Amino acid sequence: MYRHCFFDDYSEGAHPRVLAQLAADTLAQEPGYGNDAPSQRAAALLRIATGSPGAAVHFVSGGTQANLIALASVLRPHESVVAAASAHIHVHETGAVEATGHKINLVAGADGKLAPDAVRAVVAQHADEHMVRPRVVFVSQPTELGTLYSAAELEALSEACRELGLYLYLDGARLASALASPACDLALPRLAALVDMFYLGGTKNGALFGEAIVITNPALQPDFRYHLKQRGALLAKGRALGTQFVALLEDDLYLELARHANAMAARLATGLRAAGVRFLGDPVTNLVFPILSDATIARLREAYGFHVWGRVDDAHSAIRLVASWATTPAAVDAFLDDFAASTAAG
Amino acid sequence: MYRHCFFDDYSEGAHPRVLAQLAADTLAQEPGYGNDAPSQRAAALLRIATGSPGAAVHFVSGGTQANLIALASVLRPHESVVAAASAHIHVHETGAVEATGHKINLVAGADGKLAPDAVRAVVAQHADEHMVRPRVVFVSQPTELGTLYSAAELEALSEACRELGLYLYLDGARLASALASPACDLALPRLAALVDMFYLGGTKNGALFGEAIVITNPALQPDFRYHLKQRGALLAKGRALGTQFVALLEDDLYLELARHANAMAARLATGLRAAGVRFLGDPVTNLVFPILSDATIARLREAYGFHVWGRVDDAHSAIRLVASWATTPAAVDAFLDDFAASTAAG
Amino acid sequence: MYRHCFFDDYSEGAHPRVLAQLAADTLAQEPGYGNDAPSQRAAALLRIATGSPGAAVHFVSGGTQANLIALASVLRPHESVVAAASAHIHVHETGAVEATGHKINLVAGADGKLAPDAVRAVVAQHADEHMVRPRVVFVSQPTELGTLYSAAELEALSEACRELGLYLYLDGARLASALASPACDLALPRLAALVDMFYLGGTKNGALFGEAIVITNPALQPDFRYHLKQRGALLAKGRALGTQFVALLEDDLYLELARHANAMAARLATGLRAAGVRFLGDPVTNLVFPILSDATIARLREAYGFHVWGRVDDAHSAIRLVASWATTPAAVDAFLDDFAASTAAG
Amino acid sequence: MYRHCFFDDYSEGAHPRVLAQLAADTLAQEPGYGNDAPSQRAAALLRIATGSPGAAVHFVSGGTQANLIALASVLRPHESVVAAASAHIHVHETGAVEATGHKINLVAGADGKLAPDAVRAVVAQHADEHMVRPRVVFVSQPTELGTLYSAAELEALSEACRELGLYLYLDGARLASALASPACDLALPRLAALVDMFYLGGTKNGALFGEAIVITNPALQPDFRYHLKQRGALLAKGRALGTQFVALLEDDLYLELARHANAMAARLATGLRAAGVRFLGDPVTNLVFPILSDATIARLREAYGFHVWGRVDDAHSAIRLVASWATTPAAVDAFLDDFAASTAAG
Repeated sequence: MYRHCFFDDYSEGAHPRVLAQLAADTLAQEPGYGNDAPSQRAAALLRIATGSPGAAVHFVSGGTQANLIALASVLRPHESVVAAASAHIHVHETGAVEATGHKINLVAGADGKLAPDAVRAVVAQHADEHMVRPRVVFVSQPTELGTLYSAAELEALSEACRELGLYLYLDGARLASALASPACDLALPRLAALVDMFYLGGTKNGALFGEAIVITNPALQPDFRYHLKQRGALLAKGRALGTQFVALLEDDLYLELARHANAMAARLATGLRAAGVRFLGDPVTNLVFPILSDATIARLREAYGFHVWGRVDDAHSAIRLVASWATTPAAVDAFLDDFAASTAAG
Repeated sequence: MYRHCFFDDYSEGAHPRVLAQLAADTLAQEPGYGNDAPSQRAAALLRIATGSPGAAVHFVSGGTQANLIALASVLRPHESVVAAASAHIHVHETGAVEATGHKINLVAGADGKLAPDAVRAVVAQHADEHMVRPRVVFVSQPTELGTLYSAAELEALSEACRELGLYLYLDGARLASALASPACDLALPRLAALVDMFYLGGTKNGALFGEAIVITNPALQPDFRYHLKQRGALLAKGRALGTQFVALLEDDLYLELARHANAMAARLATGLRAAGVRFLGDPVTNLVFPILSDATIARLREAYGFHVWGRVDDAHSAIRLVASWATTPAAVDAFLDDFAASTAAG
Repeated sequence: MYRHCFFDDYSEGAHPRVLAQLAADTLAQEPGYGNDAPSQRAAALLRIATGSPGAAVHFVSGGTQANLIALASVLRPHESVVAAASAHIHVHETGAVEATGHKINLVAGADGKLAPDAVRAVVAQHADEHMVRPRVVFVSQPTELGTLYSAAELEALSEACRELGLYLYLDGARLASALASPACDLALPRLAALVDMFYLGGTKNGALFGEAIVITNPALQPDFRYHLKQRGALLAKGRALGTQFVALLEDDLYLELARHANAMAARLATGLRAAGVRFLGDPVTNLVFPILSDATIARLREAYGFHVWGRVDDAHSAIRLVASWATTPAAVDAFLDDFAASTAAG
Repeated sequence: MYRHCFFDDYSEGAHPRVLAQLAADTLAQEPGYGNDAPSQRAAALLRIATGSPGAAVHFVSGGTQANLIALASVLRPHESVVAAASAHIHVHETGAVEATGHKINLVAGADGKLAPDAVRAVVAQHADEHMVRPRVVFVSQPTELGTLYSAAELEALSEACRELGLYLYLDGARLASALASPACDLALPRLAALVDMFYLGGTKNGALFGEAIVITNPALQPDFRYHLKQRGALLAKGRALGTQFVALLEDDLYLELARHANAMAARLATGLRAAGVRFLGDPVTNLVFPILSDATIARLREAYGFHVWGRVDDAHSAIRLVASWATTPAAVDAFLDDFAASTAAG
C-alpha cells in the first residue's frame, strides 16, 4: 500500500548473491551445528577482515540473541552491564539481559555514546557487595541515535575498561554501515583490537538473517558453543548462516551493500537539506533524521512508510528514514519529489 | 570424504522449492518481526492443516529454541516439566530448560514414550511445597528412540493431563516423518486437538531452518511474542521463516518430503532385513537402527557417515541411519551393496 | 570505639521481650516450616492489626529476601517492576530482582515517591512486545529518603494501579516507624487495603531478624510457600520467626518501640534545629538528615558512628542519624552536647 | 497432642546456652551484615575447628539457602551439579538449584553415596556442548539415608574430583551428628581438606537457625558476599547468626549436643533391637529407621510423632525416628514401653 518504505533496513529479503550462494551448495552434505565448511570459511574470512587471526567466530540468527548470549557468557551472577540509557538492550529487547539474571547500569548521554568518565563514575558508585559489580561495557557502532564513535573515542573507552577491569562489548547490528561511512575513522581491525567481543550484523545488511560474533579476547573464547546451544542459538543447519556470510564477505559484498545504503541515505539528506530541512544529528550512515512539519509528515505518510522518531516542537517532529542495500535512487527521488510537492502544497 | 552420509536429516541445505520461494519475493518490502504477509499466509495454512482455526502460530529458528520458549512461557517459577529420561530436552539441550529456571522430572521408559500412569505417579509423589509442582508434560512424535504414539496412546495421555491439571506439549522436530508413516494412525488435526501446544519441524524436513509453534489452547496464547522477543527468537526478517513454511505447506510439500525420507529409510531397512539384519525397534519413520557386527560397522564407516547408537553385545552395536528429503535411491543402494560386500568379506 | 552509633536501627540485637518469648517456649515441640503455633498466632494478630481477615501471612528472615520472593512470585518472565530511582531494590540489593529474571523500570523523583502520572507514563511507553510489560509497582513507606506517603497519595497510586492492571507492593522495612509517626495519616488497615502485598519489618524494629509478608490480594496467595521454599526462605524452625512476631504484636510492642525510636530522632532534630541546623527533608520518622559543615562532621566522627549521606555544597554535607528502639536519651544528649562543643570550637 | 515427637531434630527451639548468648550481648552495638564481632569470633573458632586457617566463613539462615548460594556461586551458566538421586537438593528443595539456572545430573545408588566411578561415568557421558558440563559434586554427611562416608571413601571421591576438574561440595546439615558418631572415622579437619566448600549445620543441632558455610578452596572465596546479598541471605543483624555459632563452638557445645542426640537414637535402637526389630541401614547418627508392622505403626502413631519412611513388604514399613539435643531418656523409654505394649497387644 505504501509507494515505498523507509521503515528499516530489514524490509526486503536477502541480496540475490546471498540467495544464490545458498542455492549453489544446497545438496552438498555438511556436518551440523556450525561445523560445516561454509561456516569455517566465513570465520576465516572474518579473521582476515578483522586482522584477528586468533579470534573465535560464531554465527547466530539475530541481534537480541547475539547480545544476550555474549553478555551472559562473560558475567557471573552478581555482575552487571554498563550501557547508555538509549541502548537497544535496555529499551527494546524485552528484558532479555535481565532474563539471564543481570542488571544493566545506565549512563545518561545526549548522543547515545558512553564517555570513559561516565563509566568510571558508575564503577566508583558500585563499591561493595550491596550493589552489583559492573563487569562489561556495552556500546554499539553506530549508536542507537545514529552517531559514530571515533577511533580516539573508542580508544579512550577501551583504555578505561582495561584500567577498570571491565570487558568491552560492541553491538554491530549496523556496523557495516559505520565502516562504509566517510565520517568513520575507525576501521574494522582497529575496532576488533579495542573490544573484547563484538558482532557484525548481517540481517540489516543484505543477509536473510544472521550475525557474526567475533571474540577477540582469548579468555572469553572457551565454552562459547555451550552458551549458544543452551540459549537455542546453535542451528542444526549452521551452514545456513555460514553460507550467507561467505557471500557477504567474499569480495567485500558487505561493504558494497553498506556503501549503497549510505549513499541512498545521503541522497535523501542532500535533497532535503537543499530544501532547507534541518536534521537531528548529522546523517552519517544509512539513517537520516529530518525534522519536518507535522502537516508535511501527515501528507508523506499517505505514500511512504517511516517512523516518527520524536517531537521537536509544537509543530515539528523528527522522522527516521532508513535506506537499505535494496533502496533505489528512483525511490529516493520519488520521495524527494513528493516532499517538494507536500511543502509547496503546505 | 564420505561417499554418503546418513548422519542426520539436516545434512543438506534447503529443498529447491523452498529456496525458490525465498528468491521469488526477496525484493518485496514486508513488515518486520513476523508481521509479514508470508508469515500470515503460512500461519493460515497451518490452521487449516491442523484443523485449528483458533490456533496461534509462531515461527522460530530451531528446536531447542522452540522447546525452551514454549515451556518457559507456561510455567511459574516453582513448576516443572515431566519428560521421559530419553527426552531431547533432558539429554541434548545443554540444560536449556533449567537455564530458564525449571526442573525436569524424569520418567523411565524403554520405548521413549510416557505412559499416563507414570505421569500420575510423578504428580502423586510431588505433594507439597518442598518439591516442585509438575505442570507440563513433554513428549515428542516420533520419540527420541524413533517410536510413535498411537492415537489411542496420545488420547489416554491427554486425558490424564487434563484430569491432573497438566498441559501437554509435543516436540515435532520430525513430526512430518511421523505423519507420513504408514505405521502412524495419529493425524495432524487429532494430534493438535489432544495437545495444548506443539511445533512442526522444518529444519529436518527440507527447510533451511525453522520450526512452526502451534498453540491450540487459547489460555496459552496471550503474550507469546514477548517470550519470543525476550529469548532472542523474534527475527527482524521473520519473512525468512514464513516464506519457507509457505513453500513447505503449499501442496503439502512437507508431507511429500517426509514420505520420500521414510521411503528411503524403508528401502534401507528392507535391504538389510533381507540380509538377515535385526533392528533396534521397528523402522517406521526416516530413522533405522540396524544391529551390525563391529567388524561390519568398521568397514562401512570408511565410506559412509552414520552414528553408532549403542552397544548391543560383545560383538555387535546398533547404528543409526537417517534418510532425508535429499537421500537418493542410488545412495541407499550403494550402501546396501557395500554392506553386502562387507559381510561377505567378514 | 565509638561513644555511640547512629548508623542504623539494626545495630543492637533483639528487644528483651522478644528474647524472653524465644526462651519461654524453647522446649515445646512444634511442627516445622512455619506450621508452628507461634507463627499461626502471629499471623492471626497481623490479620487483626491490618484489618484483613482474609490475608495470607508468611514470615521470612530479611528484607531483600522478602522483596525478591514477593516480586518474583507475581511476575511472568516478560513482566517488570516499576520503582523510584532511589528504590532499595534498584540500588542496594545487588541485582536481586534481576537475578530472578526481571527488569526494574525506573521513575525519577526528588522525594523518593512514585506519582500516579509517572507510573501511567511508564506504562504508556511500554506499548509492545519489544519492551517488557510493567506489572507491579514497588513503593516503600517510609521511602528510602525518609519521606511518607499520605493516605491520599497512596490512594491515588493504588487507583492508578488498578486502572492500569498493575499490582501494588509495599516494602515496609521501617513501616512501624511510619505508622508511629505523628506526620503519618495512613493507618495500617487502610494501607493494607490499598496494596496487594506488603511486608512489615521486624529486623529494624526490635526483632533479632524477621519480616512479615502480608498478601491481601487473594489472587496472589496460592502457592506462595513454594516460592519461599525455592528461594531458601522457608526456615525449618519457622517458630523462630513466628515467636518474635508474637512478642512484637502482642500489646502493640512494635508500635511502642517505633514510637521510642521516633522520639529519639525527634529529640536529635529538635536539639540540632535549636542550634540553627537545617535538614534534608523534614524529620518525620526515626531518620534525621542534618546538614553540617565538613569540619563539624569530622569532629563528630571521632566519637559517633553515622553515615555521610551526600554533599550539599562545598563546605557542607548531609549526614544520616538513625535512632532505634534501644537509643537512649542520654546518648542523644551526649551527641547534642558534643555537637555544641564542636561548633563552638569551629 | 503427641506424647512426644520424633519427627525431626528441629522440633524444639534453641539450646538455652544459645539463647543466653543472644541475650547477653543484645544491647551491644555491632556493625551490620556479618561484620560484627561475634561473627568474626565464630569464624575464627571454625577455622580452628576445621584446621583451615585460610578458610572463608559465612553464616546463613538455612540449608536450602546455603546449598543454592554455594552451588550457584561456583557455576557458569552451562555447568551442572552431580548428585545422588536421593539428594536433598534434587528431591526436597523445590527446584532451588534449577531456579538458579543449573541442571542436576543424577547418579543412582542404594546407600545415598556417590562412588568415584559413578562420577567418572557422568563426566564421560557429557562429552560436548549439546550437554551440560558437570562442574561440582554434591554430597552430604551423613547422607539423606543416614549413611556415612568413611575417610577412605571421601578421599577417593575427592581425588576423582580433582582429577576430573570438579569441585566437591558437602552439605553438612547434620554434620555434627556424623562427627560425633562412633561409626565415623572422618574428622572435621580431614573433611575440610578434602572438599572445596561445605556447611556445618546449626538449625538441626541446637541453634535457633543458622548454617556456617566454610570455603576452603581459595579460588572460590572472592565475591561470596555478593552472592549472599543477591539471594537475600545477608542478614542486617548478622550478629544473630554469629552469636549462636559462638555459643555452639565454644567448648565444643555443638559436639556435646550431637553426642546427646546420637546417644538418644542409640538408646532407641538398642531397645528396639532387643525386641527383635530390624533396621533399614545401621543406626549410626541421630536417625533410626526401624522396620515395624503396620499394626504397630498405627498404634504408635496415636501417641508419637514420626514419619513413615517407606514400605518394606505387604505388612511392614520402615519409620524414621529422629533424636535431638532436647530428646530425654524418659521420652525414649516411654516410646520403648509403648512399643512393647503395642507388640504384646498385637
